[in-house]
Amino acid sequence: MSEKNQQIVLANRPVRSVEEANFRLVESEIAQPGANQVLVRNHWLSLDPYMRGRIADTRSYAKPVDIGAVMVGDTAGEVLQSNHADFEPGDYVVGALGWQQFGVADGTALRKVDAGRIPLSAYLGAVGMPGVTAYVGLIDICAPKPGDTVVVTAAFGAVGSVVGQLAKIVGCRAVGIAGGPEKCRYVVDALGFDACVDYKSADAKAQLKAALPDGIDCLFENVGGEMFDLLLVRMNTFSRIALCGLIADFNTTDPYGVKKMLTLILNRVKLQGFIVGDHLPRWPVALDELAGHVAAGRIKYRESVAENLAAAPAALVGMFKGHNFGKQLVRLA
Amino acid sequence: MSEKNQQIVLANRPVRSVEEANFRLVESEIAQPGANQVLVRNHWLSLDPYMRGRIADTRSYAKPVDIGAVMVGDTAGEVLQSNHADFEPGDYVVGALGWQQFGVADGTALRKVDAGRIPLSAYLGAVGMPGVTAYVGLIDICAPKPGDTVVVTAAFGAVGSVVGQLAKIVGCRAVGIAGGPEKCRYVVDALGFDACVDYKSADAKAQLKAALPDGIDCLFENVGGEMFDLLLVRMNTFSRIALCGLIADFNTTDPYGVKKMLTLILNRVKLQGFIVGDHLPRWPVALDELAGHVAAGRIKYRESVAENLAAAPAALVGMFKGHNFGKQLVRLA
Repeated sequence: MSEKNQQIVLANRPVRSVEEANFRLVESEIAQPGANQVLVRNHWLSLDPYMRGRIADTRSYAKPVDIGAVMVGDTAGEVLQSNHADFEPGDYVVGALGWQQFGVADGTALRKVDAGRIPLSAYLGAVGMPGVTAYVGLIDICAPKPGDTVVVTAAFGAVGSVVGQLAKIVGCRAVGIAGGPEKCRYVVDALGFDACVDYKSADAKAQLKAALPDGIDCLFENVGGEMFDLLLVRMNTFSRIALCGLIADFNTTDPYGVKKMLTLILNRVKLQGFIVGDHLPRWPVALDELAGHVAAGRIKYRESVAENLAAAPAALVGMFKGHNFGKQLVRLA
Repeated sequence: MSEKNQQIVLANRPVRSVEEANFRLVESEIAQPGANQVLVRNHWLSLDPYMRGRIADTRSYAKPVDIGAVMVGDTAGEVLQSNHADFEPGDYVVGALGWQQFGVADGTALRKVDAGRIPLSAYLGAVGMPGVTAYVGLIDICAPKPGDTVVVTAAFGAVGSVVGQLAKIVGCRAVGIAGGPEKCRYVVDALGFDACVDYKSADAKAQLKAALPDGIDCLFENVGGEMFDLLLVRMNTFSRIALCGLIADFNTTDPYGVKKMLTLILNRVKLQGFIVGDHLPRWPVALDELAGHVAAGRIKYRESVAENLAAAPAALVGMFKGHNFGKQLVRLA
């Protein structure tokens, strides 16, 4: 092919906050698939909070991206060439081909999806890693009973929005925490949460009290910070916390100090830190259920789309500042 | 009887730290047992950290003690009169008769013990509530495997000392945290822990590193404070924390802020707050095993004994300052 492959590589590691200058756009030849490999044209790149950990030079659950290497990321695209029996040109696939227009992967690293049933991009959001994260954290770790009150922070986000809608589907009261009246209105009006607390509002504490007359049975925590303390003191006896993220601590060397730990003893709370990659046996079940909910309109989602690969660094920076509204994607084709 | 009953009542609630002036000694008639009730002469009163919560005027898992009421506490003593078929004079019993020389209780609230097999006072410590707390937190919540590293804070205390010795019995590496070289020596030399870190030492961090070459699989947390953060960053993947107490936060209105929460996600740590009273079905099993270990010398313990009821308030104050060395008891007879 005479066409080139645009890629974004990690130029250097962020000192504090992520900056566009941490990344560099390069051009290379399009790789050719080897035995059992598949060449994919990526249509969508997913931007996700876990990426902060992958570009840091600190201990984490996954190896950091090397300086000069193509930045990691989940992708959805179309098969161009296949040397693997399970795939043929024209198939739509989801994989982790990174920040580039074209990628080559072993067939075992790709999952064929039905882009006719639901839009291809949904397989990176509500019916992808973020959706399964919501499913595992809520259904498996929080294990809510009908009537329970479920609280989720970053409720407008790719994970949080699915948590609240799944909570409603299983008969719970769903309360979201989000920043700003616009996001809160969306969470209640479009996503069907029972209530939403605007943590940026001056009367956030009063909103919290009004939204939680029966305390909290399940907390799906994505953010941390001071709001986490305010939620901790409302945890019910034998309640559960699925600790999924602490975005508030991501871009700082001085993380928030959680003061209300004693409530975890007084109310015998279980807190479980988790990452969705540990729960591979649950993925097929979760993806199947989530696809059904999305196809039937029971789970809605919203996307923030950045156009073209070159826009990815700015979109990532914006996501960590809360500028996105729903799942952050980059359209590559 | 012409003998009187000395009692200690709650005079007022502590503003910050517990003080002797929060309590008052009074004298009353010895109560007579009614139908199915038993009159007991208390030989031993147990002083325990949970008492801080019972004299505070804040939400907790148990009702606070009323001003003017006899202070609550576990006791071991001898039956003087019995209107209950299961008890007769001379029987040794454990109950929660409070800070007084004589107490009346329903037979169902007393447990007959064998003071010939092990000393009566042990039924308030290693073979009582503190021992069962250690058992439930370690065996049921931490669920250690042979070879695991178990860390326990307040390792010299009534609960901590049993945690480490039980850990050794089930084949784990036991590392204690204690304050001062004398306590640390005791934990290693007398109790058989593999190592002990003196948190008051200037090189506590270096001691910690040396004592934990393979990280932490199970953390039995009694204390909290800055050491908790230092331990959090050494938690292994899929490790467990039994959150039993946060003594460091007990006497302050400004609890320590825990900063290393992110490690709970990165290492997928489970943290479970618990109180032993929720685990009643486990008590008989735990008490039987613990009695066997104590009788055989596999679990050793040490007691701090205050003489006479009048000394109880000062002993409680001292316990919260870490002046006790082992299980804090008051000898009443």
